[in-house]
Amino acid sequence: MNIPSKYIEMAVDQVSSLPGIGRKTALRLVLELLKRKPEDIQRFTQAINEMKEHTRLCVTCNNLSDDAQCSICSSPYRDSSLICVVADIRDVMAIESTGQFQGKYHVLGGIISPMDGIGPADLFIESLISRVAQGEVKEIILALNATMEGETTCFYLFRKLNDMEVKISSIARGVAVGGELEYTDEVTLGRSIVLRTPYEVSLKR
Amino acid sequence: MNIPSKYIEMAVDQVSSLPGIGRKTALRLVLELLKRKPEDIQRFTQAINEMKEHTRLCVTCNNLSDDAQCSICSSPYRDSSLICVVADIRDVMAIESTGQFQGKYHVLGGIISPMDGIGPADLFIESLISRVAQGEVKEIILALNATMEGETTCFYLFRKLNDMEVKISSIARGVAVGGELEYTDEVTLGRSIVLRTPYEVSLKR
Repeated sequence: MNIPSKYIEMAVDQVSSLPGIGRKTALRLVLELLKRKPEDIQRFTQAINEMKEHTRLCVTCNNLSDDAQCSICSSPYRDSSLICVVADIRDVMAIESTGQFQGKYHVLGGIISPMDGIGPADLFIESLISRVAQGEVKEIILALNATMEGETTCFYLFRKLNDMEVKISSIARGVAVGGELEYTDEVTLGRSIVLRTPYEVSLKR
Repeated sequence: MNIPSKYIEMAVDQVSSLPGIGRKTALRLVLELLKRKPEDIQRFTQAINEMKEHTRLCVTCNNLSDDAQCSICSSPYRDSSLICVVADIRDVMAIESTGQFQGKYHVLGGIISPMDGIGPADLFIESLISRVAQGEVKEIILALNATMEGETTCFYLFRKLNDMEVKISSIARGVAVGGELEYTDEVTLGRSIVLRTPYEVSLKR
C-alpha cells in the first residue's frame, strides 16, 4: 500500500500493531479519525493516555481498578468467604454481568500454558494461597476456560489448595442454555449426564 | 458490560466510536494497549495526534499530503495531461499500487449521493473544471465505483466537461481477471460483450 503521507504511515503502523487489525483496516480507521475535529482527536488520545496513567491492578484480587482496591473488594455487600478464581479481567466482567455472583474474585492474570512459556510462577497464585491462608475464605470457585490449559490450571490449584481448610468447586460444565442435544459435542453431553442435577435445582434462577 | 474502571470506560467509549468497532472489540483493544509500556502508548497516541497536525489536502488534487502539494502533483515524471478522477484518497492508493497509471489525480472527496445529502457543491468538482480550463489536460479518466451513485457522478461530470476541449474516458467494466463467466452477474457479462476489446489489446500488460 502506497500511503502518500509519512504521518499517516506512522499512525497506520501504530494502529495496525493492535491484535486483529490489519493495515487496510488501520488505514480506514486512521482516515476516519483524520476527518474529525482536532479537539475530538485530542479527546481520543487523551482517554488512552489517561487510562494507562490512572488504572492499576487491585492489591487484593488483581482486578482492574482506579484505586488501590477495586470496587468489588472494597464493597461491604460482597461475601468475603467466597472467592471466584478467573484467568482474566474480562472474565470478571462476564460473570458480573450475569448478576449471579455475590462473592469476591481472584484474577490469575492468565492460565498455565507450557506452549506459551507460562508457568505457575507467572500467575497470581501465591497471593491466592495467602488470601486463603488468612482463614476467612470458605469456598473457592474455579471459573476457568474448559480447555486443556484451563483444566491443567484447575488441577494445579486443586493440588495446592486441597490440604487447606477450604471447599473447592468448579463452575458447571454441561449443555448450554438454549443449546440442542443433537449439536452438543459428545464429551460435554456425556459429562452433563454424569453430573446431572436434581430437577428442583435446575428450576432455580 | 460492567467495566470496573471509569478510565477504561472512557477509553472504550472513544475506541468504540470508530466505525466497525463494537464495545467488546474496543475493550479487547484497550486491554491490549494497557499491557504495553507507557512510552509505547505515548508513541501510539502521539502518532495519531501528529497525523492530524501535519497532514493536509494537496492544493491541486485534494490527495492527502504532508506538504502544500502532494508528491504526485509535484513529480516531474507524471503526465500532467492525464487526470484520473477518483472519489476517495484510498482510491488513489489502490490505483497507485497497480503501477499502471503515470498521470495525475483529482480526488472528489466523495460521490453525488442525494440519499446522504451529498450534492455536486459538496465535492471538489469546480476545482477539477478549473484545472481542465487551464488547457494542459488532454484526457480525463473517470474512475468511480460502478454503483448507482458512481454512475450518476460520472454522468454529471461528463455533462460538465463535455463542451470543453478534453477527452473523457471511463475505466473498463467487465469480467474480473481470474473471474469465472458462470459466476459473473448478467449486467457485467452483457457489458463485457458489448464493450469487447480487440484481442491484441487484451494481451497488453
